[in-house]
Amino acid sequence: MTPPFLIFLGDVPFAPWSKTGWGLKTWREADCLAQLRLPGCVADLGLPDMTPGEAAACGARTMVIGVVNDGGIVSDSWIASLTEALEAGLDLVAGMHTRLADIPAIAQTARRLGRTVHDVRHPTRSFGVGTGKRRAGRRLLTVGTDCGVGKKFAALAIDKAIRARGIDSDFRATGQTGIMITGRGVAVDSVVADFVSGAAEWLSPANDPDHWDVIEGQGSLFHPAYAAVTLGLIHGSQPDALVVCHAVGRDVLYGFPEYPTPSLTDCMAANVMAARLTNPAARVVGISLNTASLDQAAAEIAIAQAERDTGLPCCDPIRQGADRIVEALLEKG
Amino acid sequence: MTPPFLIFLGDVPFAPWSKTGWGLKTWREADCLAQLRLPGCVADLGLPDMTPGEAAACGARTMVIGVVNDGGIVSDSWIASLTEALEAGLDLVAGMHTRLADIPAIAQTARRLGRTVHDVRHPTRSFGVGTGKRRAGRRLLTVGTDCGVGKKFAALAIDKAIRARGIDSDFRATGQTGIMITGRGVAVDSVVADFVSGAAEWLSPANDPDHWDVIEGQGSLFHPAYAAVTLGLIHGSQPDALVVCHAVGRDVLYGFPEYPTPSLTDCMAANVMAARLTNPAARVVGISLNTASLDQAAAEIAIAQAERDTGLPCCDPIRQGADRIVEALLEKG
Repeated sequence: MTPPFLIFLGDVPFAPWSKTGWGLKTWREADCLAQLRLPGCVADLGLPDMTPGEAAACGARTMVIGVVNDGGIVSDSWIASLTEALEAGLDLVAGMHTRLADIPAIAQTARRLGRTVHDVRHPTRSFGVGTGKRRAGRRLLTVGTDCGVGKKFAALAIDKAIRARGIDSDFRATGQTGIMITGRGVAVDSVVADFVSGAAEWLSPANDPDHWDVIEGQGSLFHPAYAAVTLGLIHGSQPDALVVCHAVGRDVLYGFPEYPTPSLTDCMAANVMAARLTNPAARVVGISLNTASLDQAAAEIAIAQAERDTGLPCCDPIRQGADRIVEALLEKG
Repeated sequence: MTPPFLIFLGDVPFAPWSKTGWGLKTWREADCLAQLRLPGCVADLGLPDMTPGEAAACGARTMVIGVVNDGGIVSDSWIASLTEALEAGLDLVAGMHTRLADIPAIAQTARRLGRTVHDVRHPTRSFGVGTGKRRAGRRLLTVGTDCGVGKKFAALAIDKAIRARGIDSDFRATGQTGIMITGRGVAVDSVVADFVSGAAEWLSPANDPDHWDVIEGQGSLFHPAYAAVTLGLIHGSQPDALVVCHAVGRDVLYGFPEYPTPSLTDCMAANVMAARLTNPAARVVGISLNTASLDQAAAEIAIAQAERDTGLPCCDPIRQGADRIVEALLEKG
């Protein structure tokens, strides 16, 4: 995945669906050159708008699909832009369930021009079933009240804060955006269901006793579509520590209005119960609050309220980083 | 899957791994002609032992792999027998994660001879993500304290007992053996993790308000390898009624000796909590006890004890059928 990147936002109808683009903009900003938006696009990363030809002329090497959607589907309305990018000299990177390499117009154009098409969501290896056997090293997993509440961001911020203290840590990507940011990982939602916990075991192998794996969570135990992925990831990760992530103001699951988001305490209880199957010492060590919908004063009130409700350190890692959680994590040993 | 069948038991080292063969012998006995066992095989279905050539001479049309294992792997030690069956004129049917069609020796032999190779565990269609939307019709799902405790048998017996009362019911197969028995279904453990609950929704679509879908459960919420499959199946099935299945004497999970089986009441509570996410009216309506390890008198004591422990009707569907559970189910409405 060669930078610089042109980030393709397509005709994304909901701003939260541009989270792959936002993740790249946030964690690999120097590599993000421009964005490409089609009519109807409601997202804006604040990058210059360019066509593939313009971006290539400015040095871009790769166009990355920066949007997600339920089902991970490549829209027909994108295909002309994707082939245009190949024609302009760019490689393609996507994190959809649909493989770009399975779309004839894209596969043929890429082959004719010698371009690379990389479908990062598709595992490039097979996995065994989970063993449930304990392994050395320490593990933290972010979990959430819903999808798109900041589990990846929290994990990246926690990993950064642990390493800032001179302690060994690895961020373990479990979704397409995390893989694009760090260049490795497994999109666990794309693994055959029988092997999800086995894939999670593989992703965070035995390590030094004091080493932390900070594992990006997926979905939510309270999600009617994605809880299976969440549970397999919990069981295979065998986390010592859980961080519960929530977006303030998200009262129902995004796109599933019949489903209320759980309270922080209900979410904590359900995740701890699930995690204790494979690690009886699992506990929640902090709360990560996405307060993007609030101003600074209201955000501080919401964070203080979450600390009172849960008795745990809480922070918004976008506003504050994750020091507060990491200090408590390392202090308690 | 054309009968009669030669059931291939290979060199299966654990008798419970012959459960596919037992399922066919039990529910399609008239179609089971013979068994093929290799040195080391500990299973015995009580069928005549035949080579593929002998079975073909007696009229067999298909050799079915009648064993399961963790990971669903086709052993190298089986391949000579599988190609021998093709040479003898038999088609092949398997329910492994490994596709027979991906094994060169088998694929080439089948192509040369014009035989059919059917990998029933591999979905032949794609699924959407779960919607979580309620749909008409009534649904019962069997769940369990472990794998291999009788969830499929219980579901088949319950479906039979409902239909015996003149009420519409369909058994919905979710694993390879169930698919082989009924000729349809989806092996949910082979679906990409993001789509497990969507596949379960597809499997038991909206129906008449009084129609029952009796859905075969998979795995266990208490299983470190397979709970993800279990949870996705629960959420997508939206069961009104759950039946908890347990094998008497199974104190630890089969093949996972560090993991104790849960009590019936803990198993009931965890499954009801999971099921109520997508169906707030979900409840446990009965207990299915596999008492194969006991004599008749001890089995009756164990069944009575389970009824006292749970306050629910309990039966061993192999010894007694499922009338006791179905009477209570239909009575309570």
